[in-house]
Amino acid sequence: MNSELASQQVKDIGEQGLLERLQRFCPPEIIGDDAAVLVTAPEQSLVVTTDVLVDGVHFSNLTTSPEDAGWRSAAANLSDLAAMGASPLGITVGLGLPGEVRVSWVERLYQGMTECLQKYNTPIVGGDIVRSPVTTLAITAFGQVHPNQIIRRSAAVIGDAIVVTGVHGASQAGLQLLLHPELGQSLNNEEKTPLIRAHQRPQPRLDVLPILWKILDSQSKIQVALEAHQRCDLKSKIPVAGMDSSDGLADAIIQICRASGVGAVLECRQIPVPKTFNHWLPQEQALEYALYGGEDFELVLCLPQESASALVQHLGEGAAIVGRVTAGSTVLLHDEQKKFPDQVLSLSQGFQHFDS
Amino acid sequence: MNSELASQQVKDIGEQGLLERLQRFCPPEIIGDDAAVLVTAPEQSLVVTTDVLVDGVHFSNLTTSPEDAGWRSAAANLSDLAAMGASPLGITVGLGLPGEVRVSWVERLYQGMTECLQKYNTPIVGGDIVRSPVTTLAITAFGQVHPNQIIRRSAAVIGDAIVVTGVHGASQAGLQLLLHPELGQSLNNEEKTPLIRAHQRPQPRLDVLPILWKILDSQSKIQVALEAHQRCDLKSKIPVAGMDSSDGLADAIIQICRASGVGAVLECRQIPVPKTFNHWLPQEQALEYALYGGEDFELVLCLPQESASALVQHLGEGAAIVGRVTAGSTVLLHDEQKKFPDQVLSLSQGFQHFDS
Repeated sequence: MNSELASQQVKDIGEQGLLERLQRFCPPEIIGDDAAVLVTAPEQSLVVTTDVLVDGVHFSNLTTSPEDAGWRSAAANLSDLAAMGASPLGITVGLGLPGEVRVSWVERLYQGMTECLQKYNTPIVGGDIVRSPVTTLAITAFGQVHPNQIIRRSAAVIGDAIVVTGVHGASQAGLQLLLHPELGQSLNNEEKTPLIRAHQRPQPRLDVLPILWKILDSQSKIQVALEAHQRCDLKSKIPVAGMDSSDGLADAIIQICRASGVGAVLECRQIPVPKTFNHWLPQEQALEYALYGGEDFELVLCLPQESASALVQHLGEGAAIVGRVTAGSTVLLHDEQKKFPDQVLSLSQGFQHFDS
Repeated sequence: MNSELASQQVKDIGEQGLLERLQRFCPPEIIGDDAAVLVTAPEQSLVVTTDVLVDGVHFSNLTTSPEDAGWRSAAANLSDLAAMGASPLGITVGLGLPGEVRVSWVERLYQGMTECLQKYNTPIVGGDIVRSPVTTLAITAFGQVHPNQIIRRSAAVIGDAIVVTGVHGASQAGLQLLLHPELGQSLNNEEKTPLIRAHQRPQPRLDVLPILWKILDSQSKIQVALEAHQRCDLKSKIPVAGMDSSDGLADAIIQICRASGVGAVLECRQIPVPKTFNHWLPQEQALEYALYGGEDFELVLCLPQESASALVQHLGEGAAIVGRVTAGSTVLLHDEQKKFPDQVLSLSQGFQHFDS
C-alpha cells in the first residue's frame, strides 16, 4: 500500500466511499436492499446477541491491533451463540467513526473480523457506518438452534458435573504481558506467544457443539429422557446447562447456579490453567487469573457425570471436570489437598487471597 | 418522579443497575442467557437490518425528546423490514452512554422505542449497555418473510406503475417548523401539529403488506405467473420491487431504477404532499420537500398497473401512483401541465430550482 493510501482518512472518502471499500468483506448477494435476507433451516429457533465496543473503553491501539480488535469482537459474539448451542448465520456491523480515523484502520478491523468469521463460515450480512466523535463498534450476531438443543443457564440440576472446555487464565495473562512486558522476563517466546495469542485471537468454542450432541445422542436414551423430563420446567429439553466464560470462570459458574437455583463445589486443582503458569505464577495468582481473568471464551457446561466424562475425553487437552452442582446456593472453592481453606466465590468480592 | 430520582445519572447506578431498570421494557422470558431465542415460522427467510445513531449527529435534545428519539429509531428499522416485505420478530438495542446521562433520559428513550414497537407487536429481545464518551444507539431489527414475498429493489420492470403509500415532505416540514418556528406563523396548530408529528412519530408502513399480498393474490393468477417468470432472474418471486423513502422519495426511485436497470418518469402533480403545503409553500418548495426531504418512511413500490390501482384504492388518503417505470436509465420529473421544464433527478445534484 503506498503512503498516500495508508494515510487516507475516513473523511476523505466519506461514509459512502467507505461502505464501497468494505463491500469486499460481505457476500455480494447481500448488498443493495434495505435489509439482508438469510435462509434459515426448518424447525430452528433464531438466536440473537449484541455487543457494543467503544475505543478507549473496550479496545485500544496500545494493546490491540485493528485486526485483533476485529477478531475479538467477532469471536465474543460467536462465543455467545456457542453458549446457547446455536450455529451462526451471520453478523451485522454498526460502525461509528470520527472523520480522522484512517481508512486502512477500518479495513484492517474488517480483515480481522472476517478472518475469525470465515473460520466458522459466518458472513457479515449488513451494517451501518456513521460519523461519531468516538470509534464505536456495534455487532449483532444471529444463529439458529433446534428448539430441543438450546443450552440455557437455568437448567443445571444437583449432581451435574461442571465441565470447562479448555484452560482458563490465558487471556488475562496475555493481556498482562502486553501491558507489562517485564512480567515475562523469565519466560521464553514459546511460552509467551500462546498466552498473548489467547488474548488477541480467542477461539469461540463452536467446535464443541457437534461433539456434545453426538455424546448426548449416544448416551442411554432412557437416561436422557428422564433427565430431560426433570429439566422440562427449567425451559431446557437437553440435560445440559451452560454459558461462556467471557466474564470469567467464577462469573459463569455463579450465574449458572443463580439461574438454576443450585450451588456448586469447585476443586481448586481440577481447574485447568496453561502449563506455563506452573513455573511462572504463584498458585494463588494462577487461580485468580483462571477464576476472574475473563475473556477465555470457553464453555462452562453442567451435565450428567457420564456425559461429562465422555465430553472431556473427546475434547482432550485443557478440557476438565472442575466440580459438581450441589444443593443450596453457595459456590464453594475447595482444595482437596487442604492446603487452602474453603472459599465462597462471589462476584462482588472477587478473589480472596488466602494469606490476607 | 421525585427530583432525586429525576436527576439520577447513569454513573450513579452503573451499567448493571441500568440494565435492571430497563428489563421492564423486554419480555421476561428473554432475559438471562448469553443470547435471546426467538421462534421463527417454518419456510420463512430471516431479514436483518441495522442502524447506528449518534447524539449530535442523528438526534439532538433540541428538536427531539428522548421518547421521540426512541420512537424514530425503532420506526426506521421497522420501516426497513416493511420495505423488504418482512414481518418484525424483534430488535436488539446497543447503547453507549456517558456516565452523566440521566437515568430518566434512558428510560424515556426506551419508553418511546417500546411505544412504537408495541404497535407492531415487536419485542426488544436483547441489548448491551456500555460506557462511552458520546450517547450512541445501535439498533438491529430482524423479521421474517416467505421467500416468495421478498420485496427487492432490483425487480422493477418497464411498464410498472410507481406507487407511494402516503404523502411526502411532511417530516422535513415538521423538522423545519421545530428548528425555525417563525416559518409556521401563517399556520394554525391544527395545520402544524400533523407535520411536527410526522417528524417525531413516523409510522413504518407494515400495515401495507397484508393489503399488498391480498391484492396480488386476487389478481389474475396467469398474469402474476407470467410476471413472476419475467422477474425470476431478478431474484424476486412476486411482481413488486420497492424500498422505503427514508432517504427521500427521489433517492428511493433512483435506487430502485439503478438496481433494476431501468428508468422512470414521475408526474410532478401526482406526488402527494400534505394538504397544508398547498396554501403554505410555493409549489417548488413543496416539491423539494417531497422529493428530497427524507424520513417520511413510506414505501415506494413498482408493480403492474392493475395491482397498483387496487393498492392505491385500498390504502386511501395519501397513497398515489406517481409515475411509471421506463426503458433507459434516467429518472425524469415531468409536468403534465408544462408549467415546469422536464428535470432529470439525481442524488448528487439534489433538487434543481426551475428559476435558477
